[in-house]
Amino acid sequence: MAGVGEARAAPSADHAPLGIICGGGALPFAVADSVLRRGRPVFLLAIDGWADRAAVARYPHAWLGLGQYGRLKRVARAAGCREMVCIGTVGRPSLRALRLDWGGLRVLPQLSGLFRGGDDHLLAGVTRILEAHGFRVLGAHEVAPEIVAREGPLGRMTAPPQARADAARGFALLDAIGPFDVGQAAVVAENRVLAIEAADGTDAMLARIAQMRAERRIQSAAGIGVLVKAPKPGQDRRIDLPAVGPATVAAVGAAGLGGLALRAGGVIVAEPAAVAAAADAAGLFVVGFAAGASEPP
Amino acid sequence: MAGVGEARAAPSADHAPLGIICGGGALPFAVADSVLRRGRPVFLLAIDGWADRAAVARYPHAWLGLGQYGRLKRVARAAGCREMVCIGTVGRPSLRALRLDWGGLRVLPQLSGLFRGGDDHLLAGVTRILEAHGFRVLGAHEVAPEIVAREGPLGRMTAPPQARADAARGFALLDAIGPFDVGQAAVVAENRVLAIEAADGTDAMLARIAQMRAERRIQSAAGIGVLVKAPKPGQDRRIDLPAVGPATVAAVGAAGLGGLALRAGGVIVAEPAAVAAAADAAGLFVVGFAAGASEPP
Repeated sequence: MAGVGEARAAPSADHAPLGIICGGGALPFAVADSVLRRGRPVFLLAIDGWADRAAVARYPHAWLGLGQYGRLKRVARAAGCREMVCIGTVGRPSLRALRLDWGGLRVLPQLSGLFRGGDDHLLAGVTRILEAHGFRVLGAHEVAPEIVAREGPLGRMTAPPQARADAARGFALLDAIGPFDVGQAAVVAENRVLAIEAADGTDAMLARIAQMRAERRIQSAAGIGVLVKAPKPGQDRRIDLPAVGPATVAAVGAAGLGGLALRAGGVIVAEPAAVAAAADAAGLFVVGFAAGASEPP
Repeated sequence: MAGVGEARAAPSADHAPLGIICGGGALPFAVADSVLRRGRPVFLLAIDGWADRAAVARYPHAWLGLGQYGRLKRVARAAGCREMVCIGTVGRPSLRALRLDWGGLRVLPQLSGLFRGGDDHLLAGVTRILEAHGFRVLGAHEVAPEIVAREGPLGRMTAPPQARADAARGFALLDAIGPFDVGQAAVVAENRVLAIEAADGTDAMLARIAQMRAERRIQSAAGIGVLVKAPKPGQDRRIDLPAVGPATVAAVGAAGLGGLALRAGGVIVAEPAAVAAAADAAGLFVVGFAAGASEPP
């Protein structure tokens, strides 16, 4: 089984600490642990208001406001970081929440354009600014390849033929909406698109499916239907790959679907063992599909 | 102002009663009233479980189950109908709700394929079956052109430049997802796609926007953002055009958006005067945009 992530592993011979710009959620720590397991130190640049305070405290770290670009550069350099990963959720900030410092003010002409348009725009802009100042920006899939979805089933269940057809339809739909910098997930059941993610997020979308099912507005039987997740086509995979975890599996089960279809190499599975265990316990499939393939191996 | 609907008016010299296959909602009666105002009689073929019983009783009518195709043909012919319009909401039925009769059983090989895939598939199939049996199927926009959105503002407010840009982005998005037989509406604010309609419907989508705004997950100020509605590209406009009414205007206001952008000639405005009054009272714009044009006249 050729893991796409694996093929991209070890892109760096840099043994200095990896700087991890941490947004919200558990992903930054899954990445940090993976990097530490490889023997490389990490330094967390934790975004105030987003990163989990208790979890951050377990690692060497500094806190910063989203607009404190001067502080970011300073502490990253002081910690010896030359390579950076940006990971975790960060909402579009209010200007006050930015807490602009002088370094932030200097890049403001670049920053101010970032907060219009989709999230992709925001993150791509931050990446550009970091690179303009001499940092090398890596993707989570490069520094922690074992947390990226691989081709084939994760866990015991495989996807039945209708689910594979639904997955193919979902991947084609996500490709079609990619240019609009919108969601990276959809739900398809028996060839019908039930929901498309936008600003609401995957969890809210799955909650809607559960509600529509409770209102008998979904005709497909329980256990039919697929959550499909993929990165945007042409997306810079260093930024904001879609992610799933055990909670996603639980939400897919609560929505009465049959399982998850993930674009191999393009979706983060933060805790693969826990995801497989949750899927097996619930009788759900979690299957990675290579781009262009409509059938898993 | 060249109303697109107007240019398509009076497609028929048939003075026999127009058969109106009625699903749920107020639209079938807006169409019936419009046809009656033109001096042509109507005969309602009301779908049991969907059409509004009290409203149907005001017109010559017969009731039928969704699968009672034999009865449909019989009563339509007895009433002298040669031309038909299908309008109103009809969900995907359970087999029991179909109440199949012998005429329905005969077309079952055609019917059975209809209940998989999107709604478009279902309605296009019904249209094909009616035509195979010698009925002429017309669109609501043909028999009642005054209830179809025209180019330019309806009511006093016009769309500001950002709203026109958001509308153009929304129309392009709806064109991109058209091949997937999915929703015909989206919400865009300051270039960001906030929501895409799928099986949930426009009202549920707008309720989500209101909720996300209450949770402070939408950064755009109140009064910014556009509900965009359009038919599917290449859609047979005889079937299931998207529709708005005064309740849609109220929901757009409750979601904190600035107004509605409608594809001229492709969206039904069931009660234009009531929609204009509701929009003016709420300070919202309702603007029709010609296909291919990003600016209204």
